[in-house]
Amino acid sequence: MKYKRSERMIDMTYYLLEHPHTLIPLTLFSERYEAAKSSISEDLTIIKGTFKEQHIGLIETVPGATGGVRYIPQVSEKDAEEFILWLCEKLSDSERLLPGGYVFLSDLLGSPEVLKPLGKIIASQFIDQKVDAVMTVATKGIPIAQTVANYLNVPFVIVRKDSKITEGATVSVNYVSGSSQRVEKMELSRRSLKKGARVVIVDDFMKGGGTLNGMRSLIEEFEAELVGATVFAESVFHGKRAVHNYRSLLLIEDVSVADKTIQVKPGNFLQKEPE
Amino acid sequence: MKYKRSERMIDMTYYLLEHPHTLIPLTLFSERYEAAKSSISEDLTIIKGTFKEQHIGLIETVPGATGGVRYIPQVSEKDAEEFILWLCEKLSDSERLLPGGYVFLSDLLGSPEVLKPLGKIIASQFIDQKVDAVMTVATKGIPIAQTVANYLNVPFVIVRKDSKITEGATVSVNYVSGSSQRVEKMELSRRSLKKGARVVIVDDFMKGGGTLNGMRSLIEEFEAELVGATVFAESVFHGKRAVHNYRSLLLIEDVSVADKTIQVKPGNFLQKEPE
Repeated sequence: MKYKRSERMIDMTYYLLEHPHTLIPLTLFSERYEAAKSSISEDLTIIKGTFKEQHIGLIETVPGATGGVRYIPQVSEKDAEEFILWLCEKLSDSERLLPGGYVFLSDLLGSPEVLKPLGKIIASQFIDQKVDAVMTVATKGIPIAQTVANYLNVPFVIVRKDSKITEGATVSVNYVSGSSQRVEKMELSRRSLKKGARVVIVDDFMKGGGTLNGMRSLIEEFEAELVGATVFAESVFHGKRAVHNYRSLLLIEDVSVADKTIQVKPGNFLQKEPE
Repeated sequence: MKYKRSERMIDMTYYLLEHPHTLIPLTLFSERYEAAKSSISEDLTIIKGTFKEQHIGLIETVPGATGGVRYIPQVSEKDAEEFILWLCEKLSDSERLLPGGYVFLSDLLGSPEVLKPLGKIIASQFIDQKVDAVMTVATKGIPIAQTVANYLNVPFVIVRKDSKITEGATVSVNYVSGSSQRVEKMELSRRSLKKGARVVIVDDFMKGGGTLNGMRSLIEEFEAELVGATVFAESVFHGKRAVHNYRSLLLIEDVSVADKTIQVKPGNFLQKEPE
């Protein structure tokens, strides 16, 4: 059965979106649609242009016999900024205030409306870099890890602070909780990471940075490599942070239980060089 | 700027895929592309046909002034069966065997390759039903809840067996762990569910069904409504199960640590009526 150009366009768009960061040989499409490679190339030129125009992402073309095309999800700086400002507003809602000055985030981190752009924006940082896995710590980091992994099309691994018999052999590290200065333990299943794997760390919240630092130690224990670390929100911390070189989408500047206010501004994510 | 039909097709496909289960008025598209509604209608007819042909899902048309189109992710029975059989093979790998007869699943539940079809398949069950939220219990159920919620385009909520200060006020229930017969406690943030919300339960694994039953009690406490329950895998259980009317994708029939074998077959998911 022959496909019309418009039908090819629809299915190719779907196929590319479903397989981000995957090199797709042109022969796959030409066989799928019983079309000449030259027609497929023309189709892809139109798709590439529309993906760029509509800020869907990049279509990368790799020439040669072993070449093909690759869809790379990307968010424009402007779209990222708008999303982060929208989040600032959402987070500033005094209804989110919890006893002890905590901020309720679970609804945001359980909503596809937030998680989809969030994952795409965080993944956009690594478009030029090889990433093999996304790492986070249970529980709240998981949705972020999953959405980032989805856009990078790599697995995500979950570090745990409690032991589970369903994880098999694990590797554990001790880390100093930055805020309380207590020594705690976190562990990851031995099977989760290969030696040399290039790993992106994500988490929901950072105060002192102890948890992030613990994950960095774990990556070292696996003889893997840290590519970058991003947190959804950080809070102002008056002390020496355990980590540097992280990105945060949001910065919680001040929480006042008495005044019922939460002051939130964009984190360092959009800055050219993180502080 | 005017868009060519092929450009419209690409962007409309993207837009529909990004907004599942959302009624999109035709005017949104006709304004977005500065095109007549009649042209948009023709475009959508082609998209509808291709989505059906390529098993991407349904495009539902709602006529009238308040109408529009809606993309409903759907997996064909054949594709679902193939995926489940592929999972059976993956799960039968004796390398997954852990001490105590447990089966290692974390790699599968951390892989986009598994989670995407899994979410789409589970969501396919509820195409005719209103769903307001997906519920699961931490930790292993989270990736499943997130992918199902993504395809249903609703939030997911995470029940916890440990208390967290970042959840605010919670509602808790006691439940009997089906296998050990111990009484345990699970809780959910008071803000997570509205009265009357229609809820889908998912989890990674079921033995006696106690956890699923606990979530059912929680739904009752919230005066919400259970729409359906699906687990990734169930194991054979020689006793009275605490739940009925659940779906399982996989059934772990037998695990022999001595023989190093795991016997897995499809669960009741594909059956017309669950046992």
